[in-house]
Amino acid sequence: MSQKYDDLKRLCNEVALQGGILAELSWNQETYMPKGAHANRANQIELLAGIRHKLKTGPEFKKFLSSLIDIKTGKIKTKLSKDEETNVIRLREDFVRDHVLPVAFVEKFAKLTSEATEVWQRARQENKFKLFLPYLEKLVTLNQEKADRYGFDEHPYDALLDGYEPGVTTRDIRDNFDPLKKTLQEFVKKARSEKIKLPFKTYPQEEQFELSRRLLEKLPYDFNNGRLDISTHPFSSAQHPTDSRITTRIDLKDPLSSILTVLHEAGHALYEMGLNAKYFGLPLGEPISYGIHESQSRWWETRIGLSLAFWKGFTPLLHSMNILKGISAEELYQYVNHVEPSFIRVEADELTYPLHVILRFELETALIDGSLKAKDLPEKWNELMKTYLGVTPKTDTLGCLQDVHWSHGSFGYFPTYLLGNMYAAQFFDAFEKEHPNWKKRVEKLDLPFIKEWLNQNIHRHGRRYQAMELIKKVTKKPFSSKPYIDYLENKYITGKK
Amino acid sequence: MSQKYDDLKRLCNEVALQGGILAELSWNQETYMPKGAHANRANQIELLAGIRHKLKTGPEFKKFLSSLIDIKTGKIKTKLSKDEETNVIRLREDFVRDHVLPVAFVEKFAKLTSEATEVWQRARQENKFKLFLPYLEKLVTLNQEKADRYGFDEHPYDALLDGYEPGVTTRDIRDNFDPLKKTLQEFVKKARSEKIKLPFKTYPQEEQFELSRRLLEKLPYDFNNGRLDISTHPFSSAQHPTDSRITTRIDLKDPLSSILTVLHEAGHALYEMGLNAKYFGLPLGEPISYGIHESQSRWWETRIGLSLAFWKGFTPLLHSMNILKGISAEELYQYVNHVEPSFIRVEADELTYPLHVILRFELETALIDGSLKAKDLPEKWNELMKTYLGVTPKTDTLGCLQDVHWSHGSFGYFPTYLLGNMYAAQFFDAFEKEHPNWKKRVEKLDLPFIKEWLNQNIHRHGRRYQAMELIKKVTKKPFSSKPYIDYLENKYITGKK
Repeated sequence: MSQKYDDLKRLCNEVALQGGILAELSWNQETYMPKGAHANRANQIELLAGIRHKLKTGPEFKKFLSSLIDIKTGKIKTKLSKDEETNVIRLREDFVRDHVLPVAFVEKFAKLTSEATEVWQRARQENKFKLFLPYLEKLVTLNQEKADRYGFDEHPYDALLDGYEPGVTTRDIRDNFDPLKKTLQEFVKKARSEKIKLPFKTYPQEEQFELSRRLLEKLPYDFNNGRLDISTHPFSSAQHPTDSRITTRIDLKDPLSSILTVLHEAGHALYEMGLNAKYFGLPLGEPISYGIHESQSRWWETRIGLSLAFWKGFTPLLHSMNILKGISAEELYQYVNHVEPSFIRVEADELTYPLHVILRFELETALIDGSLKAKDLPEKWNELMKTYLGVTPKTDTLGCLQDVHWSHGSFGYFPTYLLGNMYAAQFFDAFEKEHPNWKKRVEKLDLPFIKEWLNQNIHRHGRRYQAMELIKKVTKKPFSSKPYIDYLENKYITGKK
Repeated sequence: MSQKYDDLKRLCNEVALQGGILAELSWNQETYMPKGAHANRANQIELLAGIRHKLKTGPEFKKFLSSLIDIKTGKIKTKLSKDEETNVIRLREDFVRDHVLPVAFVEKFAKLTSEATEVWQRARQENKFKLFLPYLEKLVTLNQEKADRYGFDEHPYDALLDGYEPGVTTRDIRDNFDPLKKTLQEFVKKARSEKIKLPFKTYPQEEQFELSRRLLEKLPYDFNNGRLDISTHPFSSAQHPTDSRITTRIDLKDPLSSILTVLHEAGHALYEMGLNAKYFGLPLGEPISYGIHESQSRWWETRIGLSLAFWKGFTPLLHSMNILKGISAEELYQYVNHVEPSFIRVEADELTYPLHVILRFELETALIDGSLKAKDLPEKWNELMKTYLGVTPKTDTLGCLQDVHWSHGSFGYFPTYLLGNMYAAQFFDAFEKEHPNWKKRVEKLDLPFIKEWLNQNIHRHGRRYQAMELIKKVTKKPFSSKPYIDYLENKYITGKK
């Protein structure tokens, strides 16, 4: 290994360690930090994020990187191993992207989103879109400017999307989402069902927490390298493959909700734990994209957690803890798979969920290309809700003010939620071919082979491949929405679970 | 306020924020970090500590500081307010001290102590002083070199002491410890008592934790700016006056041990919470010294927690939680004040504790001035234990290997433990003059006036005064061991509690 490569690696390692410290500060803020410490914590985070950004984009980093690769052309300048070359190529991609934006723009953007988030919170609380509107307008304008600075071939949204799902274009997404949209609307109409009532009592937090812990041990989620805690909004937070933590939210009246949350967050955490620690801080030790990350969480939440096989395996554990005794696996399966159009994305069932995402994708592309004005957003939102889901939110709080993403300045993030589901479906077909008896094993709560498959096929590669390349490598087919549509059709329409 | 001062202030603020982040990382390591994350956490801490050290001693810091004050002579160069001047003077003192040691020396020292700590752990576990001896020899040599580099008037130990208790000399300590030593030996002989047996059962962790919490609320320790958690070794950890946390250790068989631990750690935490947040990162927002810090913890642990008045006030709360019902306040008071010579400093009672400290002070001054060879330490330790406390440790694990300090390279730390007790006694006399009825109030568990007094008289000043100056200001008398001796005599010998 060359000295130059070692120097670069050392800097990358430092950037990653600082990223881990930032994760720790945020994790603590959401779990155990005293309330009064908010201002001090914000100052700590701002300072360290600044130090990290400078290191990541500073002259030393550029010097080391450009001694190995021509930053303009991408031509490798020195003899490197295959893995080193991959790391250097990806680092250059990141560097080029990070460097397009002048510091003044980054600062302006950060300041605006910080203010916007606060205003959005108030606007949502008070159901006053007008409060948020001037910020939304500025956020759109700055994102348009960002897209212009990055550059794009076809649609300005391409440039933004690239920050979340590298290599995927607006057209790719349209080509997949458009036919899906029609199909889903049909499915939803046919699959609407009465919600079955379960005889819920109150389930103490400690009991539910213990249940979640026991489930995690079955995956297995390694508590030696992670934790489960409780927070207002569930999240996963990784500092290193040896420190990848998750949180859940407990609903005292519904012991099933934490189960699905925990599976979702564990999916994210297992991905981070499955990365190659040898490459910590380097692209080969990093997750590929937001979409691939989401494919891992939705895999565990929907493909496992919403399957009948899982409930057959899990119900005895539930009953052994005196929860919902007398309720069968089939009833629980029916309960968690109840389909019904609703207003809030994060509470949506598996079949209506993608329509929530498609709606956001269409609205944000229209905002970015200028065909939709920010002031017309609420009206357009409600119109699409009516068309796609047949329901009209009574308030903007239940409508266009429900998500935090835009106030964070994130345009291009939403489609990764649906891409994740689609990736998961295509991966799952490949998994099922290798493990045709997976249901039998899951029915016995024998789960480790699943994680093993994901480790081998997805996690360990880091960013060796882009999303579409990985899908092709793993499934031997190019990416397509077919596996996802087939899965939903089998499950919800034709009844082949 | 001048621009130059502002620049310096900004740097100090950044150094303090980084210090807070380091505190967070250590706090988490001792409380909630997954076990497998140790190596990654060590890397994070090493990186950030390095960044902080560079900032604190770097050319930019020196430039800003020397634009305000002549670093050689200490002469102020520009017009500053009184408070600004104090800050600048103290910052120069720190800078001069931090700068005497060349980087190579600091690195060598850090490397040695890191290795030594590991070896010490093994040596203690296996009771093999010989394992530790070569490290102890090197630690002494490096500390002698350190003292030479710092420079000193009379005794090389003065230079080391200055890092923990600025302005206090070896002679000051000898003058106070020597007469104290004789008196204490007499006291211990007279005060030895049979340990009364309490009918302890097993007390669940949650109950004991709740009891500690309720006591903390009485001080009041502000849970909005702090937390109580459980860790193997109790500690306090402050990031900012708005974030000052403590931990305790629960002994399931003794519900009283966490009570005294919590009072001790809260004493430290209240000091940090009582500092002026306006001066965060500047000397006027920092604690004075290790000794003054310890005076705060020992104040709450011994002057309040070991008083009969406290047990009169606290026993009803204890009983209301069904703990030790039927045992009177007097019996509990007797139990916690049981005097009996023992081997381990951190488990010692109030009367034998200072002799443990004096023994260490005498041994470490002798090691540093060369009159004691490291290889002769165990023999000398046991000899002094016999002389001062009348007991001889059967093993070095119970003797000279029990404390971590020397393996950390800390020589000069130990006397601050006793100075803290003596400071507390002199402060307490002043407090008692202002609040002659303090016992009556404490008997009702009416405690906030105590914290208020400490806030006003000690905490809010930050480093405006050195330890001896503050004592004189608060008590109107120069520092003396008399209040401490009088207190112990009244309590343990003449029986005036």
